[in-house]
Amino acid sequence: MTKIRIGIIGAGRIGKIHTENLLRLPEVEVKAVSDLFAGPELKAWADERGIRTLTTDSADLINDPEIDALFICSSTDTHVPLIKQAAEAGKHVFCEKPVSMDIDQTEEAIEAVRKAGVKLQIGFNRRFDHNFKRVREHIAGGTIGEPHLVKITSRDPNPPHRDYIRVSGGLFMDMAIHDFDMARFLTGSEVSEVYAQGSVMIDQAFAEFGDIDTAVTFLRFENDVLGMIDNSRKAVYGYDQRVEVFGSGGSVSVANDHPNTAVVSTSEGITSDKPLHFFLERYNEAYVEETKRFIDSLVNGTPLAVDGTDALQAERIALAAKLSQKLNRPVKLSEISELRKQVTFAH
Amino acid sequence: MTKIRIGIIGAGRIGKIHTENLLRLPEVEVKAVSDLFAGPELKAWADERGIRTLTTDSADLINDPEIDALFICSSTDTHVPLIKQAAEAGKHVFCEKPVSMDIDQTEEAIEAVRKAGVKLQIGFNRRFDHNFKRVREHIAGGTIGEPHLVKITSRDPNPPHRDYIRVSGGLFMDMAIHDFDMARFLTGSEVSEVYAQGSVMIDQAFAEFGDIDTAVTFLRFENDVLGMIDNSRKAVYGYDQRVEVFGSGGSVSVANDHPNTAVVSTSEGITSDKPLHFFLERYNEAYVEETKRFIDSLVNGTPLAVDGTDALQAERIALAAKLSQKLNRPVKLSEISELRKQVTFAH
Amino acid sequence: MTKIRIGIIGAGRIGKIHTENLLRLPEVEVKAVSDLFAGPELKAWADERGIRTLTTDSADLINDPEIDALFICSSTDTHVPLIKQAAEAGKHVFCEKPVSMDIDQTEEAIEAVRKAGVKLQIGFNRRFDHNFKRVREHIAGGTIGEPHLVKITSRDPNPPHRDYIRVSGGLFMDMAIHDFDMARFLTGSEVSEVYAQGSVMIDQAFAEFGDIDTAVTFLRFENDVLGMIDNSRKAVYGYDQRVEVFGSGGSVSVANDHPNTAVVSTSEGITSDKPLHFFLERYNEAYVEETKRFIDSLVNGTPLAVDGTDALQAERIALAAKLSQKLNRPVKLSEISELRKQVTFAH
Amino acid sequence: MTKIRIGIIGAGRIGKIHTENLLRLPEVEVKAVSDLFAGPELKAWADERGIRTLTTDSADLINDPEIDALFICSSTDTHVPLIKQAAEAGKHVFCEKPVSMDIDQTEEAIEAVRKAGVKLQIGFNRRFDHNFKRVREHIAGGTIGEPHLVKITSRDPNPPHRDYIRVSGGLFMDMAIHDFDMARFLTGSEVSEVYAQGSVMIDQAFAEFGDIDTAVTFLRFENDVLGMIDNSRKAVYGYDQRVEVFGSGGSVSVANDHPNTAVVSTSEGITSDKPLHFFLERYNEAYVEETKRFIDSLVNGTPLAVDGTDALQAERIALAAKLSQKLNRPVKLSEISELRKQVTFAH
Repeated sequence: MTKIRIGIIGAGRIGKIHTENLLRLPEVEVKAVSDLFAGPELKAWADERGIRTLTTDSADLINDPEIDALFICSSTDTHVPLIKQAAEAGKHVFCEKPVSMDIDQTEEAIEAVRKAGVKLQIGFNRRFDHNFKRVREHIAGGTIGEPHLVKITSRDPNPPHRDYIRVSGGLFMDMAIHDFDMARFLTGSEVSEVYAQGSVMIDQAFAEFGDIDTAVTFLRFENDVLGMIDNSRKAVYGYDQRVEVFGSGGSVSVANDHPNTAVVSTSEGITSDKPLHFFLERYNEAYVEETKRFIDSLVNGTPLAVDGTDALQAERIALAAKLSQKLNRPVKLSEISELRKQVTFAH
Repeated sequence: MTKIRIGIIGAGRIGKIHTENLLRLPEVEVKAVSDLFAGPELKAWADERGIRTLTTDSADLINDPEIDALFICSSTDTHVPLIKQAAEAGKHVFCEKPVSMDIDQTEEAIEAVRKAGVKLQIGFNRRFDHNFKRVREHIAGGTIGEPHLVKITSRDPNPPHRDYIRVSGGLFMDMAIHDFDMARFLTGSEVSEVYAQGSVMIDQAFAEFGDIDTAVTFLRFENDVLGMIDNSRKAVYGYDQRVEVFGSGGSVSVANDHPNTAVVSTSEGITSDKPLHFFLERYNEAYVEETKRFIDSLVNGTPLAVDGTDALQAERIALAAKLSQKLNRPVKLSEISELRKQVTFAH
Repeated sequence: MTKIRIGIIGAGRIGKIHTENLLRLPEVEVKAVSDLFAGPELKAWADERGIRTLTTDSADLINDPEIDALFICSSTDTHVPLIKQAAEAGKHVFCEKPVSMDIDQTEEAIEAVRKAGVKLQIGFNRRFDHNFKRVREHIAGGTIGEPHLVKITSRDPNPPHRDYIRVSGGLFMDMAIHDFDMARFLTGSEVSEVYAQGSVMIDQAFAEFGDIDTAVTFLRFENDVLGMIDNSRKAVYGYDQRVEVFGSGGSVSVANDHPNTAVVSTSEGITSDKPLHFFLERYNEAYVEETKRFIDSLVNGTPLAVDGTDALQAERIALAAKLSQKLNRPVKLSEISELRKQVTFAH
Repeated sequence: MTKIRIGIIGAGRIGKIHTENLLRLPEVEVKAVSDLFAGPELKAWADERGIRTLTTDSADLINDPEIDALFICSSTDTHVPLIKQAAEAGKHVFCEKPVSMDIDQTEEAIEAVRKAGVKLQIGFNRRFDHNFKRVREHIAGGTIGEPHLVKITSRDPNPPHRDYIRVSGGLFMDMAIHDFDMARFLTGSEVSEVYAQGSVMIDQAFAEFGDIDTAVTFLRFENDVLGMIDNSRKAVYGYDQRVEVFGSGGSVSVANDHPNTAVVSTSEGITSDKPLHFFLERYNEAYVEETKRFIDSLVNGTPLAVDGTDALQAERIALAAKLSQKLNRPVKLSEISELRKQVTFAH
């Protein structure tokens, strides 16, 4: 069997996770890794895993004729140029979210991929989570009838460092974008209008960069389904990732995952351990699964689970949310092209 | 011991519940009941309970010098005139919600009560529910630090009859008003701005009367806390009444009450019984408790748990929500006096 | 309507509970109360409730021709003589458990009742609990197929006073007897063999009186179903009352009831309040229900929910458990008549 | 780094699981596999995993000087001779449970290992389960004070094939032996006395071979802690593996793991998916963990998590349970040497 040969661009935390998961697939060889800061430590890491090439230049991977597909795990501003170059070089692409903070750029990347006839999967890993998949199955299978309401809770255990806040693109583009994708994934419907509000409740660093740390977003879908999302940058009890969908035939909801099921009863009360701490723990298996699905699409031609259009739509919702929060009024997705000419963001 | 003598105006379902609960209090005598449709059946009911007077005219109760306090359980349009008459006659009043669908009228009722120096408690029964009281205790006690987000789910098991829909005042004034009061009760803060959206997903009768059956409402509080409420007129699995408050130190949430804790495991899955069916079952003890608190205020001078101002504030939020939904824009509470001059509602 | 007239013998905690519950039934008059220690406080209590007669002599009630039925809530040693006297006087009897610690005596009481043609209901209140009733419904309705295993957990929040320990009849006769009745109630089957073991883990006062405070009991039913019961006199987290029945088609289990559904998530973990504290809170509604069922049997001739034979069978299992624990061997119910001639107990 | 070289004896389901888990450890090489029925399919499987040697003769592995340790995953009757041979060849051993159905044989194996100075870990995988580890941590950490009661539920989703029933050693030695080990693990105490009862409720094949399919076992520990275990060969809702430990300071319990947290509410009730189906799903991570712990002991000299004595003690409890069930009386562990001379078993 000829193995699929993969190149990894960007060997930070998420790049390493994808590498480890790819190494568990017998039909895959991780041939090369590029990272701007590749040093002895990364060299040792690559050697232990039998990765042949380590370079600081992503072009080495893009130009390597042996490489079939690239995982783009570098910073967001590099995504679009790298997708274009990869597409031109005829390589399939797995790209982390968001593709870009500029929806025109994202459209260009999608167009490049389309022209080249290569595949592009986006790292919306939560679609592969065992809980959210089960919710989707119930909705698609009609368990709860026609959906009426979608509620998503998405809270991080700790705010990012201020250096990250500065360049993150803001809560809606950086964090809630996962939830916007989830809303589309669960309902199978498109959003038509957005209203968002935010506050700075946790850390004034967010205010400093024109950002917020606590937000609520309202979505109206084209089929009149209503959606609600709440986000916080700091839930002291851990990563909080829940959804509920309510419809004509009932509701389905998922709670957090916990490290164990132990319940302690003492004279003080009934206690259990906090949820799994953060995305690495909670979405561990989802990362494995999304990698499998991408490779499966390359090997067997199965449809992509998340493609460039999914990235674009989530980014459009995020932009609408940013505009809505800034203008304090509901924003239709059909208005965003016009509105963003009038509005400038600190981030 | 001289007993407190009570008159009940309106002996429908809720009037009867209050009567039964009052009869269990040793310091109370239910002396008289008035109901427009008093007939032989109601006569038998009153006799069995040792109630001395049954009349079709509420004035008989208002003018009875032996009666200390009145429970106003008649239709909403009668509340304000009855409160004024009762206040002038020097009688304390327990009035069902809403006091009025016109906030000017509610203000007049409050003023009448203030002038007469009598007490007015409003039937926001959910404040007395064991679950919501516990949430309030945790927030007031600082368990979750400073609140950041309040989420309220409030769904009925079945829509009302179309005759009721026609005069209900609409989802926000009739149903969500309880949730607006809950938001104020839980946070101890005032709402400054509202945004509401609605759909007709369940029954076209709602559309016919310019009403909606599914709604989401966003609240911004004066202290920047954000609130989200979702309402549905039909949850097929039963009455769904939950809240979650999230803050700097964690979160507190309450689930529905169930008729039993039985869990059945079969080859089909794990199953338990639906929540308590509707408000009579769920808030059974809350009705007892609100009655006790009112009587306690009369007998011992303890502060009222819910007064006229609480009614007014909830009505103002409901009006803002109606305006917001109609205008599809966020509405500040400071705008409602002006805006309602410009907007007319079907209901 | 002629009311059923009731006399209460023994106005301790449980006698007062039955009285309050009877007072809520429109078809009942509590005419008289007898208590050995009737004083001014009890007089005031009776007056407030409109009870006409208060006496120190139970014979006054037994001989009162107006009284239809007696609630025997006095100490266990008085049960059998009082049942016999009541039966001879033609009065129906509700008697607290156990009828007697001597199964011959219990048989005599049952015989007296049978001869007189009066009704005898036993205070196995847990049969009327909403949770256990639901388990029984599932088993009777075939939800879990043929039962294979029955597991009962029954733990008190605090051990009784040493004065009570001395005369209690021991853990099996005083406390586990409820669980023996529950095992019969849930399965609808008879026990054929018992094995019991115990330890003193909590308080040496139990050892002093030849008793134990921690016990496990195995039951074999005539149809080969196996049962397991665990008892403790002290669960620091509150009253612990759960059952699970496992069968060919699945299992059904019930958890404890809690005062509210609030769940608090903080950096320390996830916490909720302890279960309802003790039997008065947990079985509040069950006490109401058993009273209703007894009155209903008197008024409408419906079958008794728990009769004298149920008392006898539970006592026989308790005796087998005592014998088993003392002899450290399984004891068949068919052996107990013979074995108890050979064994003497400290209690 | 020199890698630890492993040989796998027996490449059935469990042998393959250990192999996969070992292959994920960078410090390990799986050099050789022996299996009586090694054919082309197993050859392909071994080749894909880079395993150099595949043989039908376990002696090839025992005599291979390059191999450091052996995983004995063949049938129970081969365990003791293989352990002895491996020990004599100076190889460390990981052996599946039980070591033997004859405790004398187990003692001989332990003695051989002791003499040779090699390590022997037993495959009591449940000690490594995330839930049971957490229970043990709470007990060891004093969260629940002094233990009083231990309750273990252990039910399989489906009975084994009749060919397996015939040679299994019976429910106590084959299935409950895990629970006997769990009881020792959780309490850190030794069992002194056992009482067991069983029934055939599921499949007459068990009766045919003198076995049972439903059992309850009572344990008394040397420190008077009481234990209860219930076993069934068929829980239609899936693998049921729970424990509860109750003590002076409270209790700790663990529920089953589920494939997701989805809860569906419909007009029929509240439903969720069944627990993880069987041991491969439930103990997936525990198998990984036990392998790591064994390798860690070889590489870094950390203490073994489960050694030969643990196997012996669990087997002695299982033997006591078999004797008790046959004789229908409690059996002390000190009696088993004598009693088994008098009793013969069908299996």
